[in-house]
Amino acid sequence: MCSKVCFLGGGSFGTALAVMLSKKGIDVSIWTRKEQLVNDINVKKENIKYLPNIVIPSKVVATTNMKEAIENSKCIVLAVPSHAIREVCKEAKKYITQNQIIVSIAKGIEQESNKRLSQVIKEEIKNNPIVILSGPSHAEEVARDMPTVVVVTSENMEYAEKIQDLFMTNKFRIYTNDDLIGIEIGGAVKNIIALAAGILDGMGYGDNAKAALMTRGMSEIIRIGIKLGGKPETFSGLTGMGDLIVTCTSMHSRNRRAGIYIGKGMSLEEAIKEVGMVVEGIKACKVFYNLKEKTGVSMPITDTLYKALFEGKDPKYGVYELMTRNKKDEIY
Amino acid sequence: MCSKVCFLGGGSFGTALAVMLSKKGIDVSIWTRKEQLVNDINVKKENIKYLPNIVIPSKVVATTNMKEAIENSKCIVLAVPSHAIREVCKEAKKYITQNQIIVSIAKGIEQESNKRLSQVIKEEIKNNPIVILSGPSHAEEVARDMPTVVVVTSENMEYAEKIQDLFMTNKFRIYTNDDLIGIEIGGAVKNIIALAAGILDGMGYGDNAKAALMTRGMSEIIRIGIKLGGKPETFSGLTGMGDLIVTCTSMHSRNRRAGIYIGKGMSLEEAIKEVGMVVEGIKACKVFYNLKEKTGVSMPITDTLYKALFEGKDPKYGVYELMTRNKKDEIY
Repeated sequence: MCSKVCFLGGGSFGTALAVMLSKKGIDVSIWTRKEQLVNDINVKKENIKYLPNIVIPSKVVATTNMKEAIENSKCIVLAVPSHAIREVCKEAKKYITQNQIIVSIAKGIEQESNKRLSQVIKEEIKNNPIVILSGPSHAEEVARDMPTVVVVTSENMEYAEKIQDLFMTNKFRIYTNDDLIGIEIGGAVKNIIALAAGILDGMGYGDNAKAALMTRGMSEIIRIGIKLGGKPETFSGLTGMGDLIVTCTSMHSRNRRAGIYIGKGMSLEEAIKEVGMVVEGIKACKVFYNLKEKTGVSMPITDTLYKALFEGKDPKYGVYELMTRNKKDEIY
Repeated sequence: MCSKVCFLGGGSFGTALAVMLSKKGIDVSIWTRKEQLVNDINVKKENIKYLPNIVIPSKVVATTNMKEAIENSKCIVLAVPSHAIREVCKEAKKYITQNQIIVSIAKGIEQESNKRLSQVIKEEIKNNPIVILSGPSHAEEVARDMPTVVVVTSENMEYAEKIQDLFMTNKFRIYTNDDLIGIEIGGAVKNIIALAAGILDGMGYGDNAKAALMTRGMSEIIRIGIKLGGKPETFSGLTGMGDLIVTCTSMHSRNRRAGIYIGKGMSLEEAIKEVGMVVEGIKACKVFYNLKEKTGVSMPITDTLYKALFEGKDPKYGVYELMTRNKKDEIY
């Protein structure tokens, strides 16, 4: 279908997908503002900063010229952190033509507007089909051809299926799911829970506590997800439970790593600096703390994390409070 | 409520709960056939074989005399593996009197009859209330007072609430959930997925693959669980997702450990011997392979595991087959 795929952004996951598509025989362009990165990709054949030790095939071409990157692409992948999506769309729409499919692989909610990323994209790029790709997929493993399973969704599933066809390999399996809202909300909230799970790990709690946190975190995802229009069954799927698992248990996860540093006693600022990449869970925590207040949905873990991150609450006392809340029935 | 709690069986989880209740000030008796274990608990104050390095309080008394253990207990905990439940119930019912609450902490399905454990118990002990306690709770952590969250269920929730009151501490939080069927099915099937997850780990696959396996395993739990009468929302809860997470990710899990040994190339028999305790997932795999055939529910992971365990299929080829099935929609 697509003769060429363009990635806007040169982060780890975008680069991993670029490598994968290139091995499938597809031409790939990567746009980034960073000249050093363009040079690393084109000359050294390695994204040294964000995806080290992976050889980038020669059919992947990086450029700082967005027009050139987008030109002749049938599919444009937005591969920037959630806070940069609107700005990149504003810039890209000058070059985007009819029928080019926009694919977003970021996970988050726009902080100022509380909008989902597909809404942000649609506001900026009005007439192109938008597809969201999400699920448990650490870049390092995708780039190494380790088996990975994800999900695609869209307002118009015809385009999701086109992306399924284009991206699927025998190591990268893609399911479809028409619950756009559920998938975007699941992908954003799980970063909050991963941050909290990392804090538990950093403080030395055990596997039982972490499984409980993840499960009760899942209840928060389901409650707010349903309130915002998602379908409950989506949250037990790849972009809910699957993504939550990989983000809460893998050392590849920046959100979890940031949490571990905080659990060991670092300040929020020190932890962010130590991770060295965007920690989406911190922004997501602010967004969903506000959404929870606005909607009246119960999110005690998000609430506790917010107070630990921004109001100096001792996380150990937070765990004690969560464990000693009133007796409850389990379901929602 | 209960002045004394009796445990039938001296395994790791039963002993951990006995230690916890005893610290709460409750008298506890443990019945086991093993004289060595009685001696270890009563004299050495340690369950050396199944829960080493945990001091057992002196208010916990072990005995080989079942009548004595049960006498004056308001609550009798069945703490034996699933295959021993019926036999222990047959023996215990001679001593059990009206109003004693039977609590089961085993996870599995009776192999010959495909019955849930509460059904097996009810067939043997007809007139006593039965409560099931389940959820992500490795014994080693419960015994060390590490935060743990579980769920109780019953045909008559009044009794589940009594057990919630009796067992809950500020380190052991208990939710109620009236979906008896869902909780029993979830607890049994997750051991199959944990075994498969262990095999993946043993073969050196990554976090993405494992998260995918767990999530698609969850789809199997949900499909068969609903078919057998459970409620979908239960499976995203503590006894579904929570228990699945802890069993698939923790080194405490015997099912996962058995899988790791198999993934590294051991035979099934060698792996069982190496683990040295009952591996419920092996029996559960047989049970649900049959149930899947009988009900027509799609369970590709269970199917693949069955063929790897009992028909000599190469697990690596199994993974390849799972990854290259036809394109699908995600939901059920």
